[in-house]
Amino acid sequence: MSDAAINKVVLLSGGMDSTVAAALARREGSIACLHFTYGQRTAARERRSFGLVAGVLGAVERRIIYLPHLGSFGGSALTDRSLDVPDADPARVGVPATYVPFRNAQFLAAAVAWAETLQAQAVVYGAVEEDGSGYPDCRGVFVDAFNRLVETGTKVGAELRVEAPLLHRRKSEIIRLGLELGVPFHLTWSCYQDEEVACGRCDSCALRLRGFREAGATDPLPYRKL
Amino acid sequence: MSDAAINKVVLLSGGMDSTVAAALARREGSIACLHFTYGQRTAARERRSFGLVAGVLGAVERRIIYLPHLGSFGGSALTDRSLDVPDADPARVGVPATYVPFRNAQFLAAAVAWAETLQAQAVVYGAVEEDGSGYPDCRGVFVDAFNRLVETGTKVGAELRVEAPLLHRRKSEIIRLGLELGVPFHLTWSCYQDEEVACGRCDSCALRLRGFREAGATDPLPYRKL
Repeated sequence: MSDAAINKVVLLSGGMDSTVAAALARREGSIACLHFTYGQRTAARERRSFGLVAGVLGAVERRIIYLPHLGSFGGSALTDRSLDVPDADPARVGVPATYVPFRNAQFLAAAVAWAETLQAQAVVYGAVEEDGSGYPDCRGVFVDAFNRLVETGTKVGAELRVEAPLLHRRKSEIIRLGLELGVPFHLTWSCYQDEEVACGRCDSCALRLRGFREAGATDPLPYRKL
Repeated sequence: MSDAAINKVVLLSGGMDSTVAAALARREGSIACLHFTYGQRTAARERRSFGLVAGVLGAVERRIIYLPHLGSFGGSALTDRSLDVPDADPARVGVPATYVPFRNAQFLAAAVAWAETLQAQAVVYGAVEEDGSGYPDCRGVFVDAFNRLVETGTKVGAELRVEAPLLHRRKSEIIRLGLELGVPFHLTWSCYQDEEVACGRCDSCALRLRGFREAGATDPLPYRKL
């Protein structure tokens, strides 16, 4: 472990939101980046994006944590190959089939544990609420509840906070912000389904493509012809 | 995975508190037991106790999750062999050196994820507040905060709760309760330091021995001559 002081621990999936959140944190100080492999379909592609993005941003520390139990619990189209990743559907109501039960609480808990030992001041969480997929654990009420948990359950208490700087941003704003910050969007990966050419049909691709369209920008990733 | 309905998921370290909590839950319905290996000194002994206790109690499901990152983060005498496990000291103020940063939040998050996929109604957490070691994540405020997290971060919301039935019990009461329930205390393990003969000196041994003494009972475990 390096002796350099770390300001913030960033949950970095390698998708566009967490990458922009990481770039924002990096502008303000030194970062450590944390990634999870948990049996998700696109694990290898996400790990590659994580490594490239962490490298480009100059993360002082990086760590990949394996949580295979998450996939083995089942209950999600992201980890269970017997379930199809659904196409994006703007009329869908409720929690999507790609919800992984209480996944982000596990990610955040590990990040807080690491941040506490590194004496970092914050964990950065790239959740997006209104313009996201409708996951319960990407909402402001969840982030607030998590901060109460950190306050009550750590030695450092309220000195360590979870920050969700993109929570109330639209995808198009996140992309514009990323372009201003020089974020390497070509190194990120968002597709839930595929690892080489993005499917363009899943929720995550649909939100990303609409965001680039609304931002008047071009997504540098390759998409399957639809 | 079995198809039998599970009422509660129990965090079962194999120590006396979680074993009594498991026995209480078992009296009311079917249980699944969850255990963690995370680089703690007495991991092998704890796993053995877990398996024996889960077997005696007739758990419908059991799972061991490996979280080696927890040990590798460091910052705790339970996982870092370069730090000594301190002797119990009634005059100690503050969080003990055996605190593992945000460990129980990680355990509870995994348990809630499993409980959500099993459609169980509760996670059982054997935390003890007043008569415990003074860990921040064994307090009622932490359990309340965790329940708010479950409510906001899962699909099932408030239908799933974390229960901490021993939170406000003294160790001696827990032992009496366990004796009434026929808990196999000889199969449990509490010592932080050793795996064959309990040290009798660490916080966990000291609390256990005092509890048995106050309950007027004899601890069936072997202790090192002090």
